Amino acid sequence: MALEDAFAGFRRRDWERTTPDGTVRVAVVGVGGFARNRALPAIAAGDYCETTALVTGSPDRARALASEFDVNHVVDYEGFLAGNHVAVYDAVYVATPNATHAEYAIAAADHGKHVLCEKPLTTSVERARDVVDACDRADVTLMTAYRLQTESTVRRTRDLVRDGVVGDVVQIHGSFSHPILEHAGPDTWRLDPEMAGGGALVDLGIYPLNTTRYLLECDPDGVYATTHSSGEPFEQVDEHVAFQLAFPSGATASCTASFDAHASSRLELIGSDGRIAISSPFGGVVPQEMVVESGDLRMEYTGPPVDEVREEFDYFGYCVLTDTDPEPDGADGVADLRAIEAAYESAESGRRIEVEC
Amino acid sequence: MALEDAFAGFRRRDWERTTPDGTVRVAVVGVGGFARNRALPAIAAGDYCETTALVTGSPDRARALASEFDVNHVVDYEGFLAGNHVAVYDAVYVATPNATHAEYAIAAADHGKHVLCEKPLTTSVERARDVVDACDRADVTLMTAYRLQTESTVRRTRDLVRDGVVGDVVQIHGSFSHPILEHAGPDTWRLDPEMAGGGALVDLGIYPLNTTRYLLECDPDGVYATTHSSGEPFEQVDEHVAFQLAFPSGATASCTASFDAHASSRLELIGSDGRIAISSPFGGVVPQEMVVESGDLRMEYTGPPVDEVREEFDYFGYCVLTDTDPEPDGADGVADLRAIEAAYESAESGRRIEVEC
Repeated sequence: MALEDAFAGFRRRDWERTTPDGTVRVAVVGVGGFARNRALPAIAAGDYCETTALVTGSPDRARALASEFDVNHVVDYEGFLAGNHVAVYDAVYVATPNATHAEYAIAAADHGKHVLCEKPLTTSVERARDVVDACDRADVTLMTAYRLQTESTVRRTRDLVRDGVVGDVVQIHGSFSHPILEHAGPDTWRLDPEMAGGGALVDLGIYPLNTTRYLLECDPDGVYATTHSSGEPFEQVDEHVAFQLAFPSGATASCTASFDAHASSRLELIGSDGRIAISSPFGGVVPQEMVVESGDLRMEYTGPPVDEVREEFDYFGYCVLTDTDPEPDGADGVADLRAIEAAYESAESGRRIEVEC
Repeated sequence: MALEDAFAGFRRRDWERTTPDGTVRVAVVGVGGFARNRALPAIAAGDYCETTALVTGSPDRARALASEFDVNHVVDYEGFLAGNHVAVYDAVYVATPNATHAEYAIAAADHGKHVLCEKPLTTSVERARDVVDACDRADVTLMTAYRLQTESTVRRTRDLVRDGVVGDVVQIHGSFSHPILEHAGPDTWRLDPEMAGGGALVDLGIYPLNTTRYLLECDPDGVYATTHSSGEPFEQVDEHVAFQLAFPSGATASCTASFDAHASSRLELIGSDGRIAISSPFGGVVPQEMVVESGDLRMEYTGPPVDEVREEFDYFGYCVLTDTDPEPDGADGVADLRAIEAAYESAESGRRIEVEC
């Protein structure tokens, strides 16, 4: 691909090869801040999903929200697990604390419902495999909610890499920092290792981790990591993490994430014959700024900001309606958890941890 | 310091507090490509040094070069070691292959000459300490040629960090790649582990390593590294390296270097309350482009390109003329070698290597 051609039709949803009829009726399981502020508006604005049920521990408090988004059914968790109102939804979006993902995802699969599950898929490789198995058994679609895989600059970067525009990828740098206390209290479940499965690595580091695996189309075979916490309220989880992935090709990814630093994110790939840098790829609304160098050529691209969350729901809906296997599937979610477990083991042991890939 | 003030008088040589009389007469020891193309012109263009002797293994072939730069004395290595023409120079600039730095630097010190020695100071911590001791004994100035420490964006970044503009530095990303075969043949001493002491880490990785230590004013206490070589002509040294430094504060630096990737360099500091990114800080001629974020403020600065090599020689000359201790001294060179040895040990053993700091 010539470099100029890479930017032709940049905003195109390259995954959208047809315009399917109908919509996927979604039960949103867990209505915390992200579901309220980002997911429900994105589903409402999008093309291929509609919210038909809310699942929450406090149905009474969710009535106003249901009314705001024209949702007729509000169910508590017991009712959801028991299969109440299963006729009103085709799929679930699981947005509860990480440790509870598996229970709800498996229940949904057992009810024959498709599953879009927030990342991480759950808090351990073993439990994540249970989710994959349940969805396989029920023959339903399972997508891990890696919204970045529906984002145009990231998708186009993969095209550029595939087409050899930067030669062989040699080194990647990825970072994502987000000061969690500006948006959540110190009691947030994200700082509870039992509920979250970890700290900044699990919540933020998973973005450069997954993006790197997505772009290289390959899993790491070795992981180094250093974690650090300065104390309350981060004493039980990693406040900051720096991890390094080694890939069988010899490529490395040097990634960082922080719960307690100036908000920023960045991704850069250095190849044998070029370089791609994306500004702020991980914040959810991506400014679509990237620089591509290939040999002596250099191009800067700035596009309209894209709401990744809307892209993500439309991609999920499209996959269900057209019986397409989503790229961020269950195996993708399991692979990230494998790397995350290795990273924590490395931070603990001071050793490079080998990962089966 | 207010963010706006940081950019006032940006180009100022903050180290230049007086205008000393005279110049330092320099013998350039080793006249390879860098000395010919960068050092000799920089000395000629600068204020505080002049080249009065060339030391080379092939004096006859260096006559034209000597003539071009008005240098009256050309000495071979034996003559230099024996002290021939010591009266015509006050200082040496050692630009020979790394493994020979110590012999020439120590000889110069023994002749009572000041020493500007290319980085790395030599190829082992132990031997580097011999250089430091010799210069101490002779009471001469020893500067390790970390030109980046004389570069305005890097110096101003240290001021910003000191003044708390980005809060506590949490994570650093640094990268430097330079396709060596575009500028040297496969027989270059830089690919010979005996002469170079290593590969991309020693030659290029030392830039983000030293800059990080300079900016944090602190030494790492733990190092992880992964090296990779794809084969000829890199089979004996690291073609690519990714290393991670951990500092006692909890800060980390994720650094990469490559002998065989698209030319690029970058440095980014993420702090608890801000971020600083410098474009292309390590190439020698720095475009002086940086972004500083502090809380909600964001500033972009672009200044005139600065020839770091000229800055470096003027800084060295200034230090000698004013009897000022240079910041990049022998201890600085030893500290980097300590981290480099730890990095290679980590790459070999798959373990985090603790470093005394």
